Amino acid sequence: MIVDTSIEFVSSGTVTSPRGFHAGATYAGIRHKNEGVLDLAILFSEVPCVTAAVFTGNRVKAAPILLCQQRLKSGKATAIVVNSGCANAFTGESGLADAEAMARSAAEAIGVAAEDVLVASTGVTGQPLPLQLIQAGIKQIALSPDGGHDLARAIMTTDTVPKEIAVRVNNPAFTIGGAAKGSGMIHPDLATLLCFLTTDASVEMEFLRTSLKKAADASFNMVSIDGDTSPNDMVVIMANGLAGNEPIKASSEAAEVFQQALEQVCIHLAKRIARDGEGATKLIEVTVNSAVSLDDARRAARTVVNSPLVKAAVHGNDPNWGRIIAAAGRSGAELVESKTDLYLGDICLLKTGNPQPYDESAAVECLKKDEVVINVNLNLGTATATAWGCDLSEEYVTINSEYTT
Amino acid sequence: MIVDTSIEFVSSGTVTSPRGFHAGATYAGIRHKNEGVLDLAILFSEVPCVTAAVFTGNRVKAAPILLCQQRLKSGKATAIVVNSGCANAFTGESGLADAEAMARSAAEAIGVAAEDVLVASTGVTGQPLPLQLIQAGIKQIALSPDGGHDLARAIMTTDTVPKEIAVRVNNPAFTIGGAAKGSGMIHPDLATLLCFLTTDASVEMEFLRTSLKKAADASFNMVSIDGDTSPNDMVVIMANGLAGNEPIKASSEAAEVFQQALEQVCIHLAKRIARDGEGATKLIEVTVNSAVSLDDARRAARTVVNSPLVKAAVHGNDPNWGRIIAAAGRSGAELVESKTDLYLGDICLLKTGNPQPYDESAAVECLKKDEVVINVNLNLGTATATAWGCDLSEEYVTINSEYTT
Repeated sequence: MIVDTSIEFVSSGTVTSPRGFHAGATYAGIRHKNEGVLDLAILFSEVPCVTAAVFTGNRVKAAPILLCQQRLKSGKATAIVVNSGCANAFTGESGLADAEAMARSAAEAIGVAAEDVLVASTGVTGQPLPLQLIQAGIKQIALSPDGGHDLARAIMTTDTVPKEIAVRVNNPAFTIGGAAKGSGMIHPDLATLLCFLTTDASVEMEFLRTSLKKAADASFNMVSIDGDTSPNDMVVIMANGLAGNEPIKASSEAAEVFQQALEQVCIHLAKRIARDGEGATKLIEVTVNSAVSLDDARRAARTVVNSPLVKAAVHGNDPNWGRIIAAAGRSGAELVESKTDLYLGDICLLKTGNPQPYDESAAVECLKKDEVVINVNLNLGTATATAWGCDLSEEYVTINSEYTT
Repeated sequence: MIVDTSIEFVSSGTVTSPRGFHAGATYAGIRHKNEGVLDLAILFSEVPCVTAAVFTGNRVKAAPILLCQQRLKSGKATAIVVNSGCANAFTGESGLADAEAMARSAAEAIGVAAEDVLVASTGVTGQPLPLQLIQAGIKQIALSPDGGHDLARAIMTTDTVPKEIAVRVNNPAFTIGGAAKGSGMIHPDLATLLCFLTTDASVEMEFLRTSLKKAADASFNMVSIDGDTSPNDMVVIMANGLAGNEPIKASSEAAEVFQQALEQVCIHLAKRIARDGEGATKLIEVTVNSAVSLDDARRAARTVVNSPLVKAAVHGNDPNWGRIIAAAGRSGAELVESKTDLYLGDICLLKTGNPQPYDESAAVECLKKDEVVINVNLNLGTATATAWGCDLSEEYVTINSEYTT
């Protein structure tokens, strides 16, 4: 087989772009009083899927996470039911029973076994799931092969835009789709990350697990700080095999193109999440080059992009670049000041530790862009990593002061 | 000797309250165009002091830090010269030469050896120290035994109030004074912490070092996250021995009261720093009880108090308590949800993992207070720690978007 390594975007792509996936959503009235605001959705595959997931690193795990972790030991799932408006977190034993009941209702509506249904929730914590509303809502959901867009809208909380994509590979011919929600970007400590990925590729379970972990590390984990996660975070991928290809495993010729396509989907969604951080007005992309290790490069890039002072300076178009180096310096990554270079876009601000004369108005223009690009060269090794974030605005504080009240 | 363990506050106490310390400050024009805004100060002891310090954990260290680290190998100092408005950070070799020249000028003005003078700077990074202004300013400084208040004002940047205190112990009779600056409290990643402590007690060098480290860990390090430090942070203590007591060492009867007095000074200053965080409207005090280890207790308390979502919720008087538990959950501390209790003031919100019914209006009243008290009981061990922070306001973002421009 000659593997075609080109990856194409699917126009208006979403989780239902791969063959055999259906989705639908409804307004169940979980939180919003506003009818028409979708808050409950189902994603369903015509055939059972090889399924892998990565979950929150928080010691406190919401009920749906506990349920999914248990169910995914089998590596199989057929459907996911997801709600926004209530996170079903800090809800104790009864929360777990509610999550199970929610899965059972969805299973009955679709006509599959309850054990094959995963559950995800996002929204306010510490409040019981309004199970009756959810059960009534599930009955109203009509599944369709175009339903992905509705699912992407139904999982939004403070997100301002839905986040979805699909990409296609031609040989072997398969598609990968995805929908995600994020928001809350100083530290996303309670900004749930939910990401649902689908593919019609046939993929072996072990490879799917490894591949998802690798893709999440290069994308979602470069938006959120490790461990700095909500009790509800999950990224799940369902592979239904309807593309009919030879099952992809680590040694397959197609493994590399699958990995690249999956990372492309995840990075696209991660960047959309970063750009849509609460109150955000622009995307910040920080690349750390020539670090001693990948771990160091990632750590430094994430620390810079998550520094509130860097984020506030970018918001105010203030080239206060010392904050960037100070953030890298406290990241834990190896850094030698006298070797470090710093670029804002194309403008060199620091060369081997020495501040460079620069045109301040050009730097301000660079910061005014919709995408602000920062490069730090550590000049110590060969590892590179990129992290994404957003600026910090007064609006962020306003949003987060008023969330439940 | 009968040690008197009572510790009294000195009225209008400051760094010049202990015997033999003099200070003075001036307007050198380093940053502010406004005459009368003090920006340069000297602290001086009539006799050489046993001196200990703790410095920033940032890999990037400003020139004055590098100079002090070198000079304090001797464990001796007689004076400190400090400026605000320019941090002399990211200034390479010439920055170090400038810091040395600043110390030399102060040494000449006071009439001591340059090696006995420490240097501290805070303010904007990446800009050269305006050495001529500083040298001219040093000549104008008049030292006096009442000059501590001026020093406390001269080190302020975005601080809104000076932070100073002194406490007295009666037997052995000694005084400890302190002045500090802070501000910038989401993460104080470039909010320089400077703290100058003075005492007329006679203290042995090894004990002074250990004692300062312990006091800083229980105070300043419970405001700032470990490692999350500016390139300029330093806490220094000078002990001139003029109280004439038997030199205090670890085995001394007076060691305990000295430690307690020092911690009282440091905790007072740390709380003042937290309360005066940029844009802050209230103090948040988080105590984590019954943790497995002190390290766990500190980690959890700091993570909660530094969570932007917790801080924003407190700002908005929003009892969104799930954010508190989620922050503790991601802190890395051992935590078992089903054992955890949570209190806001006296109001129990969570008991062994189960949300408790509570009066929401009472909780809102609790959050409206000038000091918001949060208690988390992990019910796993015996360790306890308290951390301090402030709420997150729109004002914080405004301040930090406009700092250099």
